[in-house]
Amino acid sequence: MASAGFTLQQIAERLGSQATVVGQGGALITGVAPLHSAQAGQISFLATTKSRVLADLASTKASAIVVKDASSAPGFNLIVVPDPVEAFDLILGLFPTPQCPPPAGVDPAARIDPGAELGEGVAVGPGVVVQAGARIGPRTVLWANVFVGADCRIGADCTLHPGVVLREQTELGDRVIIHPNAVLGADGFGYRTDRKTGVHHKVPQVGRVIVGNDVEIGANTTIDRAKFGSTRIGNGAKIDNLCMIAHNVQVGDGCLIAALTGLAGSVELDHHVVLAGHVGIRDNVHLAAGTIVTAMSGCSHDTKPGDVQSGHYGQDHRVYLRQMALTKQLPELFQRVKELADRLEAIERAAADDPKAG
Amino acid sequence: MASAGFTLQQIAERLGSQATVVGQGGALITGVAPLHSAQAGQISFLATTKSRVLADLASTKASAIVVKDASSAPGFNLIVVPDPVEAFDLILGLFPTPQCPPPAGVDPAARIDPGAELGEGVAVGPGVVVQAGARIGPRTVLWANVFVGADCRIGADCTLHPGVVLREQTELGDRVIIHPNAVLGADGFGYRTDRKTGVHHKVPQVGRVIVGNDVEIGANTTIDRAKFGSTRIGNGAKIDNLCMIAHNVQVGDGCLIAALTGLAGSVELDHHVVLAGHVGIRDNVHLAAGTIVTAMSGCSHDTKPGDVQSGHYGQDHRVYLRQMALTKQLPELFQRVKELADRLEAIERAAADDPKAG
Amino acid sequence: MASAGFTLQQIAERLGSQATVVGQGGALITGVAPLHSAQAGQISFLATTKSRVLADLASTKASAIVVKDASSAPGFNLIVVPDPVEAFDLILGLFPTPQCPPPAGVDPAARIDPGAELGEGVAVGPGVVVQAGARIGPRTVLWANVFVGADCRIGADCTLHPGVVLREQTELGDRVIIHPNAVLGADGFGYRTDRKTGVHHKVPQVGRVIVGNDVEIGANTTIDRAKFGSTRIGNGAKIDNLCMIAHNVQVGDGCLIAALTGLAGSVELDHHVVLAGHVGIRDNVHLAAGTIVTAMSGCSHDTKPGDVQSGHYGQDHRVYLRQMALTKQLPELFQRVKELADRLEAIERAAADDPKAG
Repeated sequence: MASAGFTLQQIAERLGSQATVVGQGGALITGVAPLHSAQAGQISFLATTKSRVLADLASTKASAIVVKDASSAPGFNLIVVPDPVEAFDLILGLFPTPQCPPPAGVDPAARIDPGAELGEGVAVGPGVVVQAGARIGPRTVLWANVFVGADCRIGADCTLHPGVVLREQTELGDRVIIHPNAVLGADGFGYRTDRKTGVHHKVPQVGRVIVGNDVEIGANTTIDRAKFGSTRIGNGAKIDNLCMIAHNVQVGDGCLIAALTGLAGSVELDHHVVLAGHVGIRDNVHLAAGTIVTAMSGCSHDTKPGDVQSGHYGQDHRVYLRQMALTKQLPELFQRVKELADRLEAIERAAADDPKAG
Repeated sequence: MASAGFTLQQIAERLGSQATVVGQGGALITGVAPLHSAQAGQISFLATTKSRVLADLASTKASAIVVKDASSAPGFNLIVVPDPVEAFDLILGLFPTPQCPPPAGVDPAARIDPGAELGEGVAVGPGVVVQAGARIGPRTVLWANVFVGADCRIGADCTLHPGVVLREQTELGDRVIIHPNAVLGADGFGYRTDRKTGVHHKVPQVGRVIVGNDVEIGANTTIDRAKFGSTRIGNGAKIDNLCMIAHNVQVGDGCLIAALTGLAGSVELDHHVVLAGHVGIRDNVHLAAGTIVTAMSGCSHDTKPGDVQSGHYGQDHRVYLRQMALTKQLPELFQRVKELADRLEAIERAAADDPKAG
Repeated sequence: MASAGFTLQQIAERLGSQATVVGQGGALITGVAPLHSAQAGQISFLATTKSRVLADLASTKASAIVVKDASSAPGFNLIVVPDPVEAFDLILGLFPTPQCPPPAGVDPAARIDPGAELGEGVAVGPGVVVQAGARIGPRTVLWANVFVGADCRIGADCTLHPGVVLREQTELGDRVIIHPNAVLGADGFGYRTDRKTGVHHKVPQVGRVIVGNDVEIGANTTIDRAKFGSTRIGNGAKIDNLCMIAHNVQVGDGCLIAALTGLAGSVELDHHVVLAGHVGIRDNVHLAAGTIVTAMSGCSHDTKPGDVQSGHYGQDHRVYLRQMALTKQLPELFQRVKELADRLEAIERAAADDPKAG
């Protein structure tokens, strides 16, 4: 953490005009921590009034707290803001922990093919393999045991964490971050089945993966190369851990894809689509700009801009919630129908017993 | 791509008697590309009439297109076939992109135990570890940073992509392809919980993994070793990325398992079972030959040959679709029952008001 | 396997007073195997009477079988116990297969920073990287190609299998086992989106991962570092393959988390929570001690101790099963309501036709 630190007032000023200090503006803040573990000199935040959080508040040693409502933490030095979580994210940037220093220069135990080109300031850790024809932009960092296949293109200022594999011809833009053990450019899952013998013949997967600028790709995520042409990830898209992006998928600019989500072959996401965790999208489906698919839901049809989809095959989120609520009332409905049947039968019996009806 | 290329007529002849040329059979084709990026000299295909695809067609520079219906792409050189996608898969094989050349011979930075045996023509990249007692068949390729544990058996003509881990005693048949960072032979997830203390004691996982011939295993997929005996993957089975095959699972010949699917302990798949993406099968369940489980569905019971299962615990796919359709009609059903109740009450009230009923 | 072996009587004695021998107590047992592959000298077990298992029984060459009911396997040497599976897990421990010997000492091709500290008896394989400031406890084994980032702390007697990545400042307790290619300490998935431009700005992820004693973490599982503070895995927790533990999650002591499960940011599991496969927990949710979430279910709300939750958003398991059963009866319910409507209409029509009602 920055040894000097900031006063509470200085921090509030960094947050803009909506932030106000309550208490000692001169209090020295030297770091950040969660409420339950904060020590003197550290700032924390309070975002809910859940009882567990209030218990943390009662015992915290934090020197200041970011809150929405000054009355929620009486007696503390406070910064009051409309959105404590958002404000705290900005404060985090003021107190960076020491980053792990990247490897300096090219490690002698890395295996760089003479036919590869490394830009100025490229850092390469031990165990890295860069094959012939690969070109790596300035200041890019390849951590230990990264594999860069033949003819890959990597832009400037990228970070590939340990164990990342880029198979041949993969392209990355600038400022791309790839977390450990992610795999780009593996063969797509494509076979032609002989109907007589049941043998699955491998369909050649001769395309590539092309990733735009400012993309982040999570640990152990896999992005398959196209059958032909390219699997594409647009600028500024962010993909979480353990996602599966199949061959020929097109992910638009600014999409957010949470963990354990799978996109089947040739899915197309327009820009700023949001897929929550454990989502599955059927092959060849096109999701329009701004579509949201909620957690653990599927989507098996094209959407319109801004659609919010939920459920097994995807439907309007509010309609789905209404169906779920009614499903929970099924026991009462079955009971009600049974009662109606009984009452109806009573009427019918009375009518049958009525001589005038005979 | 092949520098010489083929004429359109030559390509059509490779596709068999159902393929016919419309336009210039002598047009020279030197490569393949999707409609939207195809250039002169390249062949593409048209499989749907979606508006986005038709827009690609309007602007394509492809020299020829594979279609089902000649009228769908007037003015182009065409090959007309019953199934353009299937035909194009065959054409892909005519225009292979240059494969990334595998490592030649055994890299000096690989660590091959003197007690391991390598067949003729085995290629080993840098960072590879092969432990004592392992035997590797002729022409198999181990890419960079692959780990082959003690006493593994690997057949002929296999490809293990970078970062693959085979723990001790794993066996692979011939022509097996394993994509990057997949893990075979890790311990199964097995514990005995002490009911008094709540401590989970590890159950020894002393079995192995045995994989047949012509199997393909996706990136970051995990296949655990058996508790005892063997976890087995049958000949010709194809497993996609990020799948979990638990201890003692038996996968039959020719099964297809799509991404993010999990098979719990001791599941048995008979031959040619198809599991779509994000599927989960409960432990000890037996799926009969040809069973299909649709995407994002579970299956918690044994099946009969050819069953198609959907939904959380698995049921007949058509029955499930019918239930989903009726669930969507629940708002109307609740309304209808309410109306019936109102009408019934009106009748009961009329009867009560009727002096003759008194 | 142990060359000498045990007599059947000796094995039964190891299982405690509830185990009794039927047949030859002096039979020599030298190993374990499943029924279908067991050979003379091996012991197996019979846990069900499924027809497939009975077929295995009919053809087995096992010298002894562990059973619940002596009548289920007449003519065999038996050990009769209340729970054959549990008993067999204990027997497995008597016949360990030869473990793959770990690397001896520190491999010369490992890259240990001079500023790292290795305890007595630490074993390090080729391709391993240990950065400055890391401290590794006695007898811990780092298999090939493991990456240990700066300032990590690893306890005694841990095993990190090939390809495991610990990013900087990760802490492990004693006796932790991490399976191949798992990743601890990657950045959490956190962004602030500029509402005007749609650009996602990375929120610093400056926390760490802290893992307790006796934890086991599956192959290709990912545990992200905290945004600030710590992501924590409690003592004795067991996590299966391909799980996603997001930033700031707190996993309590003794939790069991099966494969392909995802915990979103800041989820808290109290002790001994059990999550079956393919489970998803919404961010910030707190699951009370002993909560169970069944396979392929979600949970989007806090629970009470011992709750069993199922379904998309999580609800009481038995209530959920009842709803599913009624959903399956929807076709009949729709039909019944239609019949009621018809009968009601008949009554209304009769009343309308009745002159006395006019």
